[in-house]
Amino acid sequence: MKNNHRYCVIMCGGIGSRFWPYSRTSRPKQFLDILGTGRTLLQMSYDRILPMVPAENILFVTNEIYAPLIREQLPEVSEDQILLEPARRNTAPCIAWAAHHIAALDPEASMIVTPSDHLITRETLFQESVLAGFDFVEKNDALLTLGIKPSRPETGYGYIQIGEPFVNGINRVKTFTEKPNAELAKVFLDSGEFFWNSGIFLWSARSIKQALERHAPDVEGVFQQGEGLFGTPAERKFIEENFPGCMSISIDFAVMEKADNVFVEPVEFGWNDLGTWSSMRDNSPKNRDGNVTHNCEGLIYNSTGNIFAITDRKLVVVDGLNDYIIADTGDVLLICPIAEEQRIKQMVNDVKLKFGEKYL
Amino acid sequence: MKNNHRYCVIMCGGIGSRFWPYSRTSRPKQFLDILGTGRTLLQMSYDRILPMVPAENILFVTNEIYAPLIREQLPEVSEDQILLEPARRNTAPCIAWAAHHIAALDPEASMIVTPSDHLITRETLFQESVLAGFDFVEKNDALLTLGIKPSRPETGYGYIQIGEPFVNGINRVKTFTEKPNAELAKVFLDSGEFFWNSGIFLWSARSIKQALERHAPDVEGVFQQGEGLFGTPAERKFIEENFPGCMSISIDFAVMEKADNVFVEPVEFGWNDLGTWSSMRDNSPKNRDGNVTHNCEGLIYNSTGNIFAITDRKLVVVDGLNDYIIADTGDVLLICPIAEEQRIKQMVNDVKLKFGEKYL
Repeated sequence: MKNNHRYCVIMCGGIGSRFWPYSRTSRPKQFLDILGTGRTLLQMSYDRILPMVPAENILFVTNEIYAPLIREQLPEVSEDQILLEPARRNTAPCIAWAAHHIAALDPEASMIVTPSDHLITRETLFQESVLAGFDFVEKNDALLTLGIKPSRPETGYGYIQIGEPFVNGINRVKTFTEKPNAELAKVFLDSGEFFWNSGIFLWSARSIKQALERHAPDVEGVFQQGEGLFGTPAERKFIEENFPGCMSISIDFAVMEKADNVFVEPVEFGWNDLGTWSSMRDNSPKNRDGNVTHNCEGLIYNSTGNIFAITDRKLVVVDGLNDYIIADTGDVLLICPIAEEQRIKQMVNDVKLKFGEKYL
Repeated sequence: MKNNHRYCVIMCGGIGSRFWPYSRTSRPKQFLDILGTGRTLLQMSYDRILPMVPAENILFVTNEIYAPLIREQLPEVSEDQILLEPARRNTAPCIAWAAHHIAALDPEASMIVTPSDHLITRETLFQESVLAGFDFVEKNDALLTLGIKPSRPETGYGYIQIGEPFVNGINRVKTFTEKPNAELAKVFLDSGEFFWNSGIFLWSARSIKQALERHAPDVEGVFQQGEGLFGTPAERKFIEENFPGCMSISIDFAVMEKADNVFVEPVEFGWNDLGTWSSMRDNSPKNRDGNVTHNCEGLIYNSTGNIFAITDRKLVVVDGLNDYIIADTGDVLLICPIAEEQRIKQMVNDVKLKFGEKYL
């Protein structure tokens, strides 16, 4: 039996600009089958949570332009499970709204908050970790984050340094650390004290509301004005009028790095934030020739290590090309060495300067 | 005043497979603005002839599937100027039919026969050469071919060795020579005796019919059965029933290399058969960055010497790519080093083996 007080908030409003043009403003990464599994990242996120949380308690917070994509990809989800943000305001306002909404439905609720565009493997371990996390935050006034045991000196992630053990399997947090340089990342890895910050959180609705009130009163204040409206037909109008007035700030910066009741559960399931083309390549099945091909038939000669990310099915014939991103999406064709992928952000800026929003 | 006995036959039934997938069976090279001039190669061929031949005497011989493309690109051309082949049978049957058709309209006709997918520059010289050629074949029972003065030791073309001068500016032909190796091509160039075989011919309708009768009776015999039907409403049915039975053979092999009344007019206008991607690149206007871009907006970084041949207008963003063909045509994307373009033919075969006609 699933615990009816348990909720899940799947955040799926990001625009995935690092995967431009495969990921477009109109259909970001989480709505794509970016790993070629037959399910989009959003669908995989939903599938992963479903065994642990009652289906009707799984909520989606996203920008209102993505509502049709959620309905299309998860037709079993009802309208009142989808919270539509009228503006992009980063994770703190998103989580504050969800917490008020859930608390109105169930004051005793606990919740997991998760991104929708990451890869998680070894799902049995994931489920054990999440269930242990629920148990912990239901018994303690605690803000819990899942810390991934690092497998390599990754410089692209944030790290959490664990402090003293609090209960079995859960530690206090000593520090949050931004992306380290290669040398420091090696030290982090060797120390055994540092874990990757997964962006997956658990807490009770009560605890996160209290923490927001203490550490981010500007954000929390907006939602307190709507007390009594959440979970009612008046909620939507209230959000449309007041949400855009929230400051844009991340939950890490607004709460996690300030609160003193922050805990970390070190976990060992496989995790990748799929934040780069190279991580996508590393996590995707490859053809015999060592290329990743999404949505295309390929005749590939003397070429390896490429990613072909095609949105309309297409025949791709390639000779003599190695370690490139080839993204073809109807009105845009991008060809760029994977080693230069950090330049794509600048390219997108150039496209915006030259052509406006048309190709974003 | 244009001479009303003069006719032009523009052959435009080829499928341009060396430019696959930019050139497709459904829209071959001659129907594309392959040089980015605003006019397709077919339109340029028509424009070039129009000052010399009455408009209604310009005929088009093509496969019946291309009739809509001719109507679209040359709306001023009437239906009875388009001869539709029910099957592909190379140039000898095509020319034999055109000769019978023209002779039925005007027994005193002279005609120029020209491909539709070549580039010609210095058009004033072209016109002077063609007018001199018409004068010659109207006074002599002669099969005349235009020989281009070579500007480099090209190994991709056939050559004509000139014999003794016959009249001013026109010589007998000594030999036809296939594509030479590099060493031989250099000898040809230095000798001053060898000219490129342009595939542009002039003759009277009477002379070519006689030559066909003598040297290619199998082909000519088919059309002699239709005597009395050419230029009448019964012509179409006769062609549909009999043309497919013709053997497939080129006019060079069937007639030119055998006849003894073959002459060459050495000419000095600019000519390129646009038979390869690299010749297309050499003859196309380039961007500041040294790339050729057809039908696309380009943001091009650290890249030069590429050809972007796109059939649907598209934004192309490229980093770190040099001397490649990038052809994007709706359902096919080809990326291939220009230096490897001779491999494209094999790739097209592979595509056909794997997918059938779908992508051809």
